[in-house]
Amino acid sequence: MAKKPLNIGMVGYGFMGRAHSNAYRRVGNFFDLDYQPVLKAACGRNKDGVKAFADMWGYESIETDWKDLVKRDDIDAIDICVPNDLHVDIATAAAKAGKMVLCEKPIARDTREGEKMVKAVEKAGVANMVWYNYRWVPAVTLIKQIVDSGRLGRIFHYRANFLQDWTISPDVPQGGAGTWRLDVEAAGSGVTGDLLAHCIDTAMWINGPIKNLTAMTETFVKKRKDAGSGKVKDVGIDDAAAVMAHFDNGSLGLFESTRYARGHKALYTLEINGEHGSFKWDLHDLNRVEWFDHSVEGQLRGWTSILVTDGEHPYLGKWWVPGLTLGYEHSFVHAVADFLEGLATGKPVSPTFREALETTKVCDAIIKSGKSGRWLDVK
Amino acid sequence: MAKKPLNIGMVGYGFMGRAHSNAYRRVGNFFDLDYQPVLKAACGRNKDGVKAFADMWGYESIETDWKDLVKRDDIDAIDICVPNDLHVDIATAAAKAGKMVLCEKPIARDTREGEKMVKAVEKAGVANMVWYNYRWVPAVTLIKQIVDSGRLGRIFHYRANFLQDWTISPDVPQGGAGTWRLDVEAAGSGVTGDLLAHCIDTAMWINGPIKNLTAMTETFVKKRKDAGSGKVKDVGIDDAAAVMAHFDNGSLGLFESTRYARGHKALYTLEINGEHGSFKWDLHDLNRVEWFDHSVEGQLRGWTSILVTDGEHPYLGKWWVPGLTLGYEHSFVHAVADFLEGLATGKPVSPTFREALETTKVCDAIIKSGKSGRWLDVK
Amino acid sequence: MAKKPLNIGMVGYGFMGRAHSNAYRRVGNFFDLDYQPVLKAACGRNKDGVKAFADMWGYESIETDWKDLVKRDDIDAIDICVPNDLHVDIATAAAKAGKMVLCEKPIARDTREGEKMVKAVEKAGVANMVWYNYRWVPAVTLIKQIVDSGRLGRIFHYRANFLQDWTISPDVPQGGAGTWRLDVEAAGSGVTGDLLAHCIDTAMWINGPIKNLTAMTETFVKKRKDAGSGKVKDVGIDDAAAVMAHFDNGSLGLFESTRYARGHKALYTLEINGEHGSFKWDLHDLNRVEWFDHSVEGQLRGWTSILVTDGEHPYLGKWWVPGLTLGYEHSFVHAVADFLEGLATGKPVSPTFREALETTKVCDAIIKSGKSGRWLDVK
Amino acid sequence: MAKKPLNIGMVGYGFMGRAHSNAYRRVGNFFDLDYQPVLKAACGRNKDGVKAFADMWGYESIETDWKDLVKRDDIDAIDICVPNDLHVDIATAAAKAGKMVLCEKPIARDTREGEKMVKAVEKAGVANMVWYNYRWVPAVTLIKQIVDSGRLGRIFHYRANFLQDWTISPDVPQGGAGTWRLDVEAAGSGVTGDLLAHCIDTAMWINGPIKNLTAMTETFVKKRKDAGSGKVKDVGIDDAAAVMAHFDNGSLGLFESTRYARGHKALYTLEINGEHGSFKWDLHDLNRVEWFDHSVEGQLRGWTSILVTDGEHPYLGKWWVPGLTLGYEHSFVHAVADFLEGLATGKPVSPTFREALETTKVCDAIIKSGKSGRWLDVK
Repeated sequence: MAKKPLNIGMVGYGFMGRAHSNAYRRVGNFFDLDYQPVLKAACGRNKDGVKAFADMWGYESIETDWKDLVKRDDIDAIDICVPNDLHVDIATAAAKAGKMVLCEKPIARDTREGEKMVKAVEKAGVANMVWYNYRWVPAVTLIKQIVDSGRLGRIFHYRANFLQDWTISPDVPQGGAGTWRLDVEAAGSGVTGDLLAHCIDTAMWINGPIKNLTAMTETFVKKRKDAGSGKVKDVGIDDAAAVMAHFDNGSLGLFESTRYARGHKALYTLEINGEHGSFKWDLHDLNRVEWFDHSVEGQLRGWTSILVTDGEHPYLGKWWVPGLTLGYEHSFVHAVADFLEGLATGKPVSPTFREALETTKVCDAIIKSGKSGRWLDVK
Repeated sequence: MAKKPLNIGMVGYGFMGRAHSNAYRRVGNFFDLDYQPVLKAACGRNKDGVKAFADMWGYESIETDWKDLVKRDDIDAIDICVPNDLHVDIATAAAKAGKMVLCEKPIARDTREGEKMVKAVEKAGVANMVWYNYRWVPAVTLIKQIVDSGRLGRIFHYRANFLQDWTISPDVPQGGAGTWRLDVEAAGSGVTGDLLAHCIDTAMWINGPIKNLTAMTETFVKKRKDAGSGKVKDVGIDDAAAVMAHFDNGSLGLFESTRYARGHKALYTLEINGEHGSFKWDLHDLNRVEWFDHSVEGQLRGWTSILVTDGEHPYLGKWWVPGLTLGYEHSFVHAVADFLEGLATGKPVSPTFREALETTKVCDAIIKSGKSGRWLDVK
Repeated sequence: MAKKPLNIGMVGYGFMGRAHSNAYRRVGNFFDLDYQPVLKAACGRNKDGVKAFADMWGYESIETDWKDLVKRDDIDAIDICVPNDLHVDIATAAAKAGKMVLCEKPIARDTREGEKMVKAVEKAGVANMVWYNYRWVPAVTLIKQIVDSGRLGRIFHYRANFLQDWTISPDVPQGGAGTWRLDVEAAGSGVTGDLLAHCIDTAMWINGPIKNLTAMTETFVKKRKDAGSGKVKDVGIDDAAAVMAHFDNGSLGLFESTRYARGHKALYTLEINGEHGSFKWDLHDLNRVEWFDHSVEGQLRGWTSILVTDGEHPYLGKWWVPGLTLGYEHSFVHAVADFLEGLATGKPVSPTFREALETTKVCDAIIKSGKSGRWLDVK
Repeated sequence: MAKKPLNIGMVGYGFMGRAHSNAYRRVGNFFDLDYQPVLKAACGRNKDGVKAFADMWGYESIETDWKDLVKRDDIDAIDICVPNDLHVDIATAAAKAGKMVLCEKPIARDTREGEKMVKAVEKAGVANMVWYNYRWVPAVTLIKQIVDSGRLGRIFHYRANFLQDWTISPDVPQGGAGTWRLDVEAAGSGVTGDLLAHCIDTAMWINGPIKNLTAMTETFVKKRKDAGSGKVKDVGIDDAAAVMAHFDNGSLGLFESTRYARGHKALYTLEINGEHGSFKWDLHDLNRVEWFDHSVEGQLRGWTSILVTDGEHPYLGKWWVPGLTLGYEHSFVHAVADFLEGLATGKPVSPTFREALETTKVCDAIIKSGKSGRWLDVK
């Protein structure tokens, strides 16, 4: 049976533009789905830049203004891979034009912008998704499945960290292509929206809603040069953030993120402790899950390192053979596979804009509590 | 040259009584010191119990009332290994009687009691020490030495956890021999004084004073049977605690402790992140330090797992040969060695009562903030 | 500049057919090269099977007889992904027809067949390569580069294992699509050609030629059903093999492979010990290298775990950002990139057929010594 | 009940003299046994040296000639901690004098000497033991117990390594106090008797007798200065050895030892692969066992890291609490505990001289095969 094309209009061609394009191109080689993404158009303000990108990835055409892209009849879905400050305008316009919208995380700079986006896609009735890609790392999906089965019993603790070290030097600028994440205008926040948002999304997916929290935020380097103007400006983002929280289920949450943890590149770790068992996971060794099963007889009890490469593990039956590992980029392929599956079945893939907005509410509370030092309800 | 005897009067004969006795007996076989501990007397309320203990360890005599022990002329030093509520009375009486005092940690149930103890030993002018034994794990001592050398540059983060899982069952009682740590009257607090106190002590030893903090505490099991009376009583201790803090040096602290982390037995982990390097350590693999040296050329940079068993590592020259590891109990042997060295040199070993009191001030702030939800200065 | 197409004719559509196809399709998205592989034709005896494969991967056409494929004018290169017994005929015919030949490892069932293939491609003067893909795992490439720099000094030891557990059950058949590796007619040997061949190839690449060896081989399950006929037949392959060897440089080699090591899926590990340093690597954690640098000052010396994901690591500048890992399949992408680079520069990529034949000579000696129990020179 | 004294006469006061003395002194503090070792006399040729040792460890007296020690009526057991060439004379004389004999491993330089020793102790009917101390590491004991239970099913593979790096420098002398292990006259062999002997002993204890083997041995540094005379002499020991073997039970053995594996200090690792499960262990992390249980449901199957510190683990109930680790020296304490238990019950502890002789037979075959390159039966 011939596959239905899904014509993609990509906005942005940086790191995330590449990760998503790769996912669109690969999904059909491994997953047998009704829909086949077609790389219809890539859009970016710099014509040479977007042209080179389009050539490298096989996009059929280019645009230099997202407003033109959104108007095109031959585009089914808009994928937003540009800095956070542009999400709201592009997403609402795309929805209005009847396009599906896939948006990089976080959904927007803050809850207010995110709410507009939720309204827009829901009013338009278009499929939508936010790319919290770590949900689709098979090891993380496995944890979600086992926790959902109830096997861990009552949950006591959930903790997660996302540690990096790339902004320790005061010579790293803010703003600009690779460093807009340091500019509060473009990003909305620092590590909170960029890194903690992943931790929060996974946490609430696995362990349910967060009720309230208190946060500590810090800006270690107070002034940085602007990559565009070259002027030294105050740094408005949070360089580091820690959060203590209560989940609705009575368990305690502890989160930390920083770009000043020398030696850690992208160390996203999570752990959940339940009455009958615990899980740990770590992005640097993403094919492994650590699992403690308290029901095992005493002498042989311990932490089991599961190499998540068997055919019965989530998504793995589509890839290679046991023992052969996947990498970072496969999480995006799985996201696309599930999105396309959702189109076919009518059961939308998670997280939708509405679901992803919950994470941004938590992030807003983190930033606010980081200033006031007070416990805040998340709502 | 003949060694000077140091006559020990031990109060208590539980887990810590054994760990300390072992240290006294072994130190002279490995460390060549001016003083030699002599196990003069063991004291405990249960005569049969203390007799059996004395026989096992070679104590020359027994007492059943610590007041009698403190009066004896043939005792040089009183070692306090009983529940926290007894520390203040024994320590002040011992000091008054002119005895040196070695006290298990935490110094007392709270700052107020601890202050009395500090005054007592300082007024009496007797040698004193609190057994924060993890300082004497060679791997931890090594971290302290390198951090003190300034090699890490500006410090950004310090984080530590102490995770256990032995009180998850609601059938564990409070009070009694093995479970007084669950009884707030005996212990003063729960994980804060028992476990976090270790994390705080090491943290301030390595990274300097804590300025302020905010804490989250939780009691998961609200009622437990009293081991003595058999009656069900409210649980007054903190089952779990998390802390966010600022150090005086501008770095951020994050601490967590619980007895509800299924799978972890005594998982004390610590990490410090500086501008030029980072260290990690973990009590379950106590002979190892993880070290990241940013100055190494790029391609070969990474986390180095140092097996702390070489002759040039702290304390290791006294033991076996490279590759052969030490265990938990060796930390106590090193503590005694340093205490005796301090007697010989007149340079008192750290932590003294006064130094250990600082940790209890932090613990008091944790408990208080856990109730109010507010940031508190430590003073 | 437009890229030159390289029209691929793929023979076989099993596991390796997929791995290679994936490499051809992806290389141009990440590596900017003069040549662009084009998936021109896929060939297999089962028409429905090869049709489904061609649809999944975007091959433009199919063939059911490799002789027809070899004759086609629109094919530049033949890629051989079928059982080992077919390598010699296809490769020699392809070379004769002037096609480049890329052949799965081992080059053939034995040295005699391999020699024919070497002669054929050299006589035809066509580009050729054998897919010893683990050379292109960036961590392994890094080891090769550092060893070549001389930094390790005199080499004393090289050891490697390749451990699996998938044939422990006597119910696994021999012959057939997924199990031809157990049929000595199709495979030529068991673990020796399938797994040890990888270890030997990497070893000689990094540490130079093997001079002589003695081997122990074993067939644990003596009879298995034939997947085709259903008849029980003697098993002719080696289920396990161990090898002791001398390298030309005076170092000692120790190798082991088995499919009966319960718990190991594809555990290819290697280690090299030199005077000044050592390396270890493990396929299950393929993004890491363990490195011991004896020149580091004593107290901080240890094994460094290098996460090979930085831009300066081999091939990594083409992928994501530090901390984000690659998987098994990327090794094939790098192989294609280097093959295409070799076409452009005229400097053939290694291992050519001639180079890969050296590994098969060692494998033949292993099988022979496994029978005689004698030391054999490799020649 | 008063304990029966067991008066120890220690011959030698080097590294092993310290390890054994420590075991004698500590055993009674942790194990409640009928017998109590008494450190009666220490013997060594250097009077000042042995005096200092005796003072440090509390030996009641000293001797400078082992013949005088053996004659003394107040000695029950002779412990031999001197170089291997002295074992046979001391052990036979001690047995003749009716003393129990505890001898460091290997039992002797070769089988011939060992046989004399076996005859001597059996003729005299005295208790005897060889200190293959790694049997008493609780993690190793646990492996033995589970394998004995049959839980692993048919065994396919046993492999063990003992890797060090302390003799890489050609400046290390042979002969003398710390370096007699490099002198073939004193030691009998190099790594084979010193290190491989441990691997072989554990292997046969866990996996049964070795039937035949072939070995590769190497001397990397051919000449070294004699520590005594200062003259450069040929090196007669094996610097490195590898062994391939068949066990009686049909499984394959692979062993390697060297003192030229840069970065490894005392890396004794072992692994056993059975039909239903596998174990791994490593001396550098001696409190852990890695266990693979194939019977676990597929998705959650993996290698379990067991922290062997629970009360139900072998010997652990006598020590601290879960999570708190033991070190190298504890293996000797357990050996003494079992030896004393054997005296009380009349069931001799293993390995006796007779049992330990089997390991030396294997070692002799290794040395012999290392020269001839032939497979040899062990007999």
